[in-house]
Amino acid sequence: MSEDTPRMRADARRNREQILRAAREVFADQGPDAPLDEIARRAGVGIATLYRRFPTRPDLFRGVAAEVFTAVAGAARRAADAEGDPADALRRFMHAALDLKIGSVVPALLGHFTAAELFDRVRAADPADPADPADPADPAVPNAPADPVGTVDQLLARARAVGAVRPDVVFGDIVLMIIRLSRPLPGGGRIPDDDALAHRQLDLYVDGLRPTGSPRPTTALGGPAVDAAAFTRIRERVIDDARAAVD
Amino acid sequence: MSEDTPRMRADARRNREQILRAAREVFADQGPDAPLDEIARRAGVGIATLYRRFPTRPDLFRGVAAEVFTAVAGAARRAADAEGDPADALRRFMHAALDLKIGSVVPALLGHFTAAELFDRVRAADPADPADPADPADPAVPNAPADPVGTVDQLLARARAVGAVRPDVVFGDIVLMIIRLSRPLPGGGRIPDDDALAHRQLDLYVDGLRPTGSPRPTTALGGPAVDAAAFTRIRERVIDDARAAVD
Repeated sequence: MSEDTPRMRADARRNREQILRAAREVFADQGPDAPLDEIARRAGVGIATLYRRFPTRPDLFRGVAAEVFTAVAGAARRAADAEGDPADALRRFMHAALDLKIGSVVPALLGHFTAAELFDRVRAADPADPADPADPADPAVPNAPADPVGTVDQLLARARAVGAVRPDVVFGDIVLMIIRLSRPLPGGGRIPDDDALAHRQLDLYVDGLRPTGSPRPTTALGGPAVDAAAFTRIRERVIDDARAAVD
Repeated sequence: MSEDTPRMRADARRNREQILRAAREVFADQGPDAPLDEIARRAGVGIATLYRRFPTRPDLFRGVAAEVFTAVAGAARRAADAEGDPADALRRFMHAALDLKIGSVVPALLGHFTAAELFDRVRAADPADPADPADPADPAVPNAPADPVGTVDQLLARARAVGAVRPDVVFGDIVLMIIRLSRPLPGGGRIPDDDALAHRQLDLYVDGLRPTGSPRPTTALGGPAVDAAAFTRIRERVIDDARAAVD
């Protein structure tokens, strides 16, 4: 049938990617019980297309988890392949991984795959095309399984080797902080621009990784600068809205 | 009646504090539905004593919330009153506030008080006795309402004024990071020594607050150094245990 034409294969692959990216955002924000029709709407596809691609909710969970790790692996590989300062590469990777919200998404999906099943589906993104990560379900795409751990550990080792990161910083200091920063703060979205705040905190943290004697950055901090008055207002809103919701 | 003797008042106050501290730990770990008899057991009191002090669960929630903010205010005041480097004072306060787990405890208690009701009960700890914070329910203890925000903002301002913190760091960069670090990482306790890891990440973060030209620390990092191999093992256990629990 016409399913085999390159054009239709490309369309199907694009649909699949759009669904997985939308599902990643929705599961990160709303958890694993989020409505599937919202995912379809955000992906710009019909609900029938979503069900054709992912017949059950666990199928979608497995697809999203593999896509997130594949995207993290792609970000790590692009940072590792780039020319320039290893400290910049590590920082760039950490910001990219934070945007993928791995600490919010993956915990919401647990229980539907083993580690072996998951990493069997995680494949390296094509470094030649950062906008088009490989489709783990499509064997026509030439790539290899790619757990991001090794690439990230190499990024860190290179930054340490040139003296850009203090020698006692280890893998967990990178990845467990990305996981922590990629989870929403309590307060149900009442902190303005939670995502940008996490990037601001990451910039401060990354500077703290540098060893004795290295220069301090002079780049201004982005993201929301929440002063004491703003914090007090936000805190009052969080507490009083919760109280009002109970009545 | 004998309820009025100083000895019995002191006993009652100590019981109350033991209950509130145990409840803080248990609510932080297990959420607001945690069993009350576990709280009584950890506090070393009988369940009848707990019910006499806090007749309903919301009474206990209000008491714990006020106790946490009172303890944070006490930690801020002790740091502000101490002699020495303002940067050390700020760092010491952040570690103490992290131990109070405010980011885990308070979200679990929301809905049972307004901000005004809460801060009406929050009082300054007696700086002369760090082990004995004032009892907000006991009018015999001389103290004043004390929202910690003002004291913490002063700590930060002093550290900025002596050039120990970069000038664009604001209140939210201190407190929203304490909130973030005091929440448990996903994985249901499978990351070894989650509390010590948060203190390790805090030390790295605090160093990142320093301005251009200031010295880097030479103190070794404490807490668990999770390398790539350890991380991979933990990750596999988290994913596979969740999968096994579904079967």
